[in-house]
Amino acid sequence: MTTQEQAAWYRQKIEEALEQALPAPREGDLSGKVREAMRYSLLSGGKRIRPILALAFCEACGGEALSALPFACAVEMIHTYSLIHDDMPCMDDDDLRRGRPTNHKIYGEAMALLAGDGLLTLAFQQGLSFQGDPAAARDGARLLAEYAGAQGMVGGQCIDLEQEGKEVTLEILAQMDRGKTVALIAAACAMGCTAAGAGEKELQAARQFAFGLGMAFQLRDDVLDVLGDAAKLGKNTGMDSARDKRNYVSLLGVEEAQRLVEQYTKEALDALEAFPGDTTFLREFALSLVERES
Amino acid sequence: MTTQEQAAWYRQKIEEALEQALPAPREGDLSGKVREAMRYSLLSGGKRIRPILALAFCEACGGEALSALPFACAVEMIHTYSLIHDDMPCMDDDDLRRGRPTNHKIYGEAMALLAGDGLLTLAFQQGLSFQGDPAAARDGARLLAEYAGAQGMVGGQCIDLEQEGKEVTLEILAQMDRGKTVALIAAACAMGCTAAGAGEKELQAARQFAFGLGMAFQLRDDVLDVLGDAAKLGKNTGMDSARDKRNYVSLLGVEEAQRLVEQYTKEALDALEAFPGDTTFLREFALSLVERES
Repeated sequence: MTTQEQAAWYRQKIEEALEQALPAPREGDLSGKVREAMRYSLLSGGKRIRPILALAFCEACGGEALSALPFACAVEMIHTYSLIHDDMPCMDDDDLRRGRPTNHKIYGEAMALLAGDGLLTLAFQQGLSFQGDPAAARDGARLLAEYAGAQGMVGGQCIDLEQEGKEVTLEILAQMDRGKTVALIAAACAMGCTAAGAGEKELQAARQFAFGLGMAFQLRDDVLDVLGDAAKLGKNTGMDSARDKRNYVSLLGVEEAQRLVEQYTKEALDALEAFPGDTTFLREFALSLVERES
Repeated sequence: MTTQEQAAWYRQKIEEALEQALPAPREGDLSGKVREAMRYSLLSGGKRIRPILALAFCEACGGEALSALPFACAVEMIHTYSLIHDDMPCMDDDDLRRGRPTNHKIYGEAMALLAGDGLLTLAFQQGLSFQGDPAAARDGARLLAEYAGAQGMVGGQCIDLEQEGKEVTLEILAQMDRGKTVALIAAACAMGCTAAGAGEKELQAARQFAFGLGMAFQLRDDVLDVLGDAAKLGKNTGMDSARDKRNYVSLLGVEEAQRLVEQYTKEALDALEAFPGDTTFLREFALSLVERES
């Protein structure tokens, strides 16, 4: 299988598992609307980067990739809830996401708030349905909580809010992205290792990979935001600068930002040496993310 | 120990555990603001009914009450996040909670949204820190997710939103309260049993107790809402009718509603027969809740 075929196969399994984890509400279900709103955002054709990483890390640790599906779904649900809440008027106030109206534009703010809460909660229900060792189920879900919470993703969003309109340094920007971008990637990679029963050495390497990939991905995003073509990205380019938010390109320039993309990518790829299984897929998948043109 | 002394002791242990689970942010912590907002609502002197039930059920099943503290804190964090999000302008738009300004009034809407998300996430981190059998940690946290999610508490809030301005029947009202009130009480009681390693018989009885107590509590709330004295309750009475929301009293009248309080209370107390340990505390604590005057 080529890397693209492998990714497509993972993606198909993930889509099936997400659909199964959140089936359409039955006719007459009084609370069906919130499930409908949850489905609208969860099943809207995201790239599924994080759940793919969870499956691939499980495999790289010598585990059965599909055994990590509950963790994979969990991390995607966390990612999706964060997008719903981020798009709300009191946050970024966005009307479009993945080329479609945002959740609150369709379901209203109150229901979007609940849909986010419902997905955040369902993430743990899903993660804890992991079928292997109960200690692995516990540890995987706990890792997710740590990375998604106030010292991880939510913390990064807090930094973002707090810095609005202020002079932002590179250091602050990096700490923000550790939360907003790196944390969930790290959760995905670490949960994949946990599903395979991997030890501390693999977990440590997974964290290093996630840090490198997450930073490279974010830097590349900023570069594309400046260079990119609006039609290709499906969202307005230059949005961040329009809102006067600092990003790596405005602080470092395009060339230096791109140099850092490559440096962080190398750090990520180096971390893959630690794994017993075949890491060809992870290597090529990571490169496809940081070398993307849109 | 009297029931009141016992409740005060439980409450003290819960306050200590909550403080420990969410310590004040350190100086210079860039994401300190969201932790501050989380602490503002979590440590604001709630009645701690749900965590007390978790500890007491653990004891009634023959377990060590304090071993259930991680589950007790978890359910209180879920309860607190739901209040923060409920109070937001897009939901109930409340300015006061427990006699103090609501979270978004102090920290702004965006930070209140994040504080709720942070508490919801921390609830699982806490619950999964349960020190006993890993399978019990997993099962307790999973019960919490089921009861707190779209088929539990979030589902009840969805029904509440969906019914606004519509003719509400008793059946719909009961289904709404199964989500909004019963679900988290059930989570607390069931998690207490899980912490003690109890079997299906106790879990079933805990659910019956929670259903009876939750319904009696909600009915009593509606009765007090009509009879109550604004100063005693610390919030405006008659709020629900002011917003033209139906409640049990408007559908059944005060007398019939109060008769149901007593019927559901009896169902709850009957369920306590199933437990091996001393249930005197649970019996008297339940009675104090449904016989309250404010």
